Amino acid sequence: MVRAAVIPAPNQPVQVREYPRPKLEEGAALLRTLFSEVCGTDLYLQQGLLSETPYPLIPGHATVGVVEEVRGQVCDTEGHPLLGGEVVTFLDVHGTCGECWYCLVAKASTRCPHRKVYGITYGADEGLLGGWSQYVYLKPGVRIVRLPESLTPETLIGAGCGLPTALHAVERSDILLGQTVLVQGTGPVGLSTIALTRLRGAYKIIAIGAPEMRLLAARRMGADVCLDVEKTSIEERHAAVMDATGGRGVDVAIEASGDPAAIQEGLDLARDNGRYTVVGQYTDHGPIQVNPHTQINKKHMDIRGVWGIDYSHLHRSVLLLERYNDQFHWEQLITHTFGLEQANDALAAVGSGQAIKAVIAPWGAENST
Amino acid sequence: MVRAAVIPAPNQPVQVREYPRPKLEEGAALLRTLFSEVCGTDLYLQQGLLSETPYPLIPGHATVGVVEEVRGQVCDTEGHPLLGGEVVTFLDVHGTCGECWYCLVAKASTRCPHRKVYGITYGADEGLLGGWSQYVYLKPGVRIVRLPESLTPETLIGAGCGLPTALHAVERSDILLGQTVLVQGTGPVGLSTIALTRLRGAYKIIAIGAPEMRLLAARRMGADVCLDVEKTSIEERHAAVMDATGGRGVDVAIEASGDPAAIQEGLDLARDNGRYTVVGQYTDHGPIQVNPHTQINKKHMDIRGVWGIDYSHLHRSVLLLERYNDQFHWEQLITHTFGLEQANDALAAVGSGQAIKAVIAPWGAENST
Amino acid sequence: MVRAAVIPAPNQPVQVREYPRPKLEEGAALLRTLFSEVCGTDLYLQQGLLSETPYPLIPGHATVGVVEEVRGQVCDTEGHPLLGGEVVTFLDVHGTCGECWYCLVAKASTRCPHRKVYGITYGADEGLLGGWSQYVYLKPGVRIVRLPESLTPETLIGAGCGLPTALHAVERSDILLGQTVLVQGTGPVGLSTIALTRLRGAYKIIAIGAPEMRLLAARRMGADVCLDVEKTSIEERHAAVMDATGGRGVDVAIEASGDPAAIQEGLDLARDNGRYTVVGQYTDHGPIQVNPHTQINKKHMDIRGVWGIDYSHLHRSVLLLERYNDQFHWEQLITHTFGLEQANDALAAVGSGQAIKAVIAPWGAENST
Amino acid sequence: MVRAAVIPAPNQPVQVREYPRPKLEEGAALLRTLFSEVCGTDLYLQQGLLSETPYPLIPGHATVGVVEEVRGQVCDTEGHPLLGGEVVTFLDVHGTCGECWYCLVAKASTRCPHRKVYGITYGADEGLLGGWSQYVYLKPGVRIVRLPESLTPETLIGAGCGLPTALHAVERSDILLGQTVLVQGTGPVGLSTIALTRLRGAYKIIAIGAPEMRLLAARRMGADVCLDVEKTSIEERHAAVMDATGGRGVDVAIEASGDPAAIQEGLDLARDNGRYTVVGQYTDHGPIQVNPHTQINKKHMDIRGVWGIDYSHLHRSVLLLERYNDQFHWEQLITHTFGLEQANDALAAVGSGQAIKAVIAPWGAENST
Repeated sequence: MVRAAVIPAPNQPVQVREYPRPKLEEGAALLRTLFSEVCGTDLYLQQGLLSETPYPLIPGHATVGVVEEVRGQVCDTEGHPLLGGEVVTFLDVHGTCGECWYCLVAKASTRCPHRKVYGITYGADEGLLGGWSQYVYLKPGVRIVRLPESLTPETLIGAGCGLPTALHAVERSDILLGQTVLVQGTGPVGLSTIALTRLRGAYKIIAIGAPEMRLLAARRMGADVCLDVEKTSIEERHAAVMDATGGRGVDVAIEASGDPAAIQEGLDLARDNGRYTVVGQYTDHGPIQVNPHTQINKKHMDIRGVWGIDYSHLHRSVLLLERYNDQFHWEQLITHTFGLEQANDALAAVGSGQAIKAVIAPWGAENST
Repeated sequence: MVRAAVIPAPNQPVQVREYPRPKLEEGAALLRTLFSEVCGTDLYLQQGLLSETPYPLIPGHATVGVVEEVRGQVCDTEGHPLLGGEVVTFLDVHGTCGECWYCLVAKASTRCPHRKVYGITYGADEGLLGGWSQYVYLKPGVRIVRLPESLTPETLIGAGCGLPTALHAVERSDILLGQTVLVQGTGPVGLSTIALTRLRGAYKIIAIGAPEMRLLAARRMGADVCLDVEKTSIEERHAAVMDATGGRGVDVAIEASGDPAAIQEGLDLARDNGRYTVVGQYTDHGPIQVNPHTQINKKHMDIRGVWGIDYSHLHRSVLLLERYNDQFHWEQLITHTFGLEQANDALAAVGSGQAIKAVIAPWGAENST
Repeated sequence: MVRAAVIPAPNQPVQVREYPRPKLEEGAALLRTLFSEVCGTDLYLQQGLLSETPYPLIPGHATVGVVEEVRGQVCDTEGHPLLGGEVVTFLDVHGTCGECWYCLVAKASTRCPHRKVYGITYGADEGLLGGWSQYVYLKPGVRIVRLPESLTPETLIGAGCGLPTALHAVERSDILLGQTVLVQGTGPVGLSTIALTRLRGAYKIIAIGAPEMRLLAARRMGADVCLDVEKTSIEERHAAVMDATGGRGVDVAIEASGDPAAIQEGLDLARDNGRYTVVGQYTDHGPIQVNPHTQINKKHMDIRGVWGIDYSHLHRSVLLLERYNDQFHWEQLITHTFGLEQANDALAAVGSGQAIKAVIAPWGAENST
Repeated sequence: MVRAAVIPAPNQPVQVREYPRPKLEEGAALLRTLFSEVCGTDLYLQQGLLSETPYPLIPGHATVGVVEEVRGQVCDTEGHPLLGGEVVTFLDVHGTCGECWYCLVAKASTRCPHRKVYGITYGADEGLLGGWSQYVYLKPGVRIVRLPESLTPETLIGAGCGLPTALHAVERSDILLGQTVLVQGTGPVGLSTIALTRLRGAYKIIAIGAPEMRLLAARRMGADVCLDVEKTSIEERHAAVMDATGGRGVDVAIEASGDPAAIQEGLDLARDNGRYTVVGQYTDHGPIQVNPHTQINKKHMDIRGVWGIDYSHLHRSVLLLERYNDQFHWEQLITHTFGLEQANDALAAVGSGQAIKAVIAPWGAENST
């Protein structure tokens, strides 16, 4: 039997359940899980804050493991067949149809109505389709990426879903060499955003976040100025940002905080004719106030929402980890590792902000490396 | 003496005053005014709604006239010297410094802190620097454009400041060939936006506005679907737009209404991964509500504010008028022509929405053509 | 039996052959052909100038017809099932894999190594996979577009493959409102490029081509200045273009001529910091000379090659035909209609430049409407 | 008297001449030179290879020095007045008019016909307008940048004109995070291009250049793979690049070699739908051969020429030096320092490829720090 951690229903504690080991259809593979991530989205899932979640649900959308079994030919994107034994990760998004108006005319695959997401929109009744499980069933068409030899599973899961999400956000932000960038939020997405902003050659990076431990991580990922959102007033932060930017505000601000209140502040901290990228508003906390004259029109502002990732973001994230992990050490973001039985503790550690990054090791932390 | 219409102070009626005919400094020119526009901004100026307005003020920022006098060498952008007698218009923006951080590093000249605007930020105490005057003093460095022979002053002023503003907005909107576009607002900016959207090869153009007379103009400028904002509910308009777009919403929405309430509606009428351009919020009506999850982040939205114009927008507007006026007949937007003494009537006609476009003919309407 | 025109081998005359009516697999459809295009590429195919052509070959990559039979559910991109009887066209490109590095990482589906093209890279041995046939077999996954009611098959085939190709080229050219554009070549791609350049709001369009009949068509499609390449010298054309552009050259030049000699001329006719789009070099005529200092580096030039189309180009082409054919009348480009038996005459008419657009009507011209 | 090194005429040796110390006009400043660069362009100037050079000429277009004297108010771009004693550099480009069609309509200031360049298009008869002089006359309107305290003059001049040129080229190249980039050429522009490509988060950087010493510098600046152009055949380099890119070629290639033969090779080493930026062809070596079918059209290629720099490139280069010199140590590119009397030796060192970067210290190398 396969053990998996399951959210049975909204606001219910996670339970460990057992499932039969699945039989593979042609083109499918079975992954023996090494690590799966605990993400803020998993908290929302447990709290019932995402619409249309198919409970019971096995969470875990960023996962690394070893190919245990393959049926038929299963290849990575480079066309190399998988034989079993490879350490791989995979894109959680599956089933983007390639046939609909969004895929073909708008070329906006992250808005394809057919896309399904492992650990989020695939429920446990459909199979082992989340990473908080000893095995994950990789359906035909799942995009699999082999880890380069120099890349450990810990580094990959330390970057988790935050890195490709940050890559998408940073790419949408069109940062120029030598510009000054504000990153709001110092959770996993914010921290990877800081690292990638560094990798785009920003001049100065200002981070707003909390608590102290995360601000230290922000500094390690490349932030030049760190402002503790819990210990400073909005006026103090405004003064600090203006001081750091000749009174103009930042060229680019990126919201990765999850806090709706960050939006108004961010719009004021970006300079005229600047850019504001919103990647952290992954659930509905209701409306906020925006002044369309002073914050959009007269400011000649660009505001860009960023939803989801596509394969290209994951693929290039793995390349960046291979090449630049020496500089950023993503595995050091992991502060907590839990077994399946401790999944509720894992959620608590993330919810309280105690953890920077918590991971689930379904075979036990001690058995994962 | 030179007669000019002057706003003496906020909420005071316009008065006709007399000024001595100015002596030209080297590099300056004197324009004998044919027509100057009455724009929604002039209403705001009279109502004291723009910050830092230097009263008393001669309004009129879009103006066409005949070069009466030139001191020294004054050239157009093609380098041809003006000799007097030419029919010209000019860019109201003057004094962009070309030396500051915004001009040189951000390349955002519309945010240059040194820019001054004829009829808006230059006051009457500084000279004849607004178009509601028999003569306008063109300072050295004012960008002057000669009207091509086939282009009448009426066509030019019928397009007025709305056309280059629309050009800026349409260019920021990155409309693709065959896309469906919503234009909110059927005043001068909205109507030119519709025309230019047609000139970008949109598939379907939906206009929301009022009253009937303006919707007829919208149709003439190229709108395929016209919705009367005064006779339809927000739900009816939503249904009409979804019906016209396969249930997805428009690829691009452009706000040119001046009404803050338009913003929320526009964000909902644009499709996922669409674009929303905000060009109509030229004065501060206070904040509105926006949902950062549903309207920005999950929607993968692009929101783009558009402030002001630069010379390129005016230059190409004149070229477009020369080439395409046969198709759009901008002069037909002029519904009212007033003399200086009737300036208050002119503002009333614009304020009530009775006029599509009102113009001031400082020598009397009958003497202007 | 189904009659089809076949190129048996390079430099062999086209023959009419008979094939059994195919049985449909699940998800396939059978198209009763109304018209299929004769394109310059078909000439290259007959002359053996394209590499890896799978002879014998049924040419015809732009085709319009009536759905004769459907097996299982076959939908258009809007998700509407086809029932039979609909007038449709389809994207000649088939089998783009959506799984390879080019599709997923580079997002460059026109370079996907798995893509196959009806009438070009699918051979007759693989089925009725070209339009010069009474029936065309639409494999599962072929992208099908229904013609809007107001759009005749003649208009669609008059636009043919030239319109979506031109759309791709014009979109890559980033023409701004009010710019001046040179189009080299007045064949079907060049003529549609002129029309779409008009639809992008160009100020002045200059066409270089021949013979007279095509230049007349160029003028009808929107060219303001037409230069006969057979009756003018390169110096005369240079003088004419400089005369039309204030001595600077055009903002954007688009090569759609098929003549390698056009490249050097085009690079010289574009202005400094201009753009040059190359869409007409569809076969290998060997190298040409380019000066990297004067024509690329010092000129701060953008040169952009355009290969193939994707579904979005076809989809939006049909929308543009629906909305703008009143202005351009693409069906008037058809100068010759041939039956299958006259396929060699059709190639000759295209090869000699006698035809603007020749089409094949496999059931006889008289039976097609 | 002021001593300066002068090229009297094409192909004449450089001479040291004496000039009177200039009197400043209002808005001008006098710079006491610390270092001025010896650039490949200076060789071209000495060999008479640039058109319209105004001999006699004081070379030196990248220069760092101390403000010796100021007349009236002279400010940097941040608006801070210079008082004397500041260590500064300045943009060699001067007199961009801000009034012509290229400045205002095309927004292509590097193609403004009025721009003049210190040390290149300003001759000695017009003043001390080149850096190989004890003092440089900074005309009103010259854009001056103060060095941040942490930035030494050696670091600034080690980066020289190569860094802002590379910044312009890298920005035109639109490198995505995780892409693979080829840099052709390992002179000062190539080496800074490698560093900035690293700062854009490239996955793999391949450098082609020579000799050994420069390849070592290339590796230090961030190249992952270095190919010696003198010790490898074109086939070997092709094989090495294909080997490093899964057989596809690089995503982006940047030519910074000055060798016209590099163009053909670069076009073949870039992948389908890739980009090729040409920044090294600063003088006319005649035409080369390009295949428009295989290398442009079918390849769906983007080729982008890059001419000159504007103020933004210099401004942000100084910010990048301040923030990232710890990682790249631009001052270590300086291999030779010469006094004015040794200017011919300086040219020889650059011409032979012996030097990576040679600089002129007009007061003697020993007196410059």
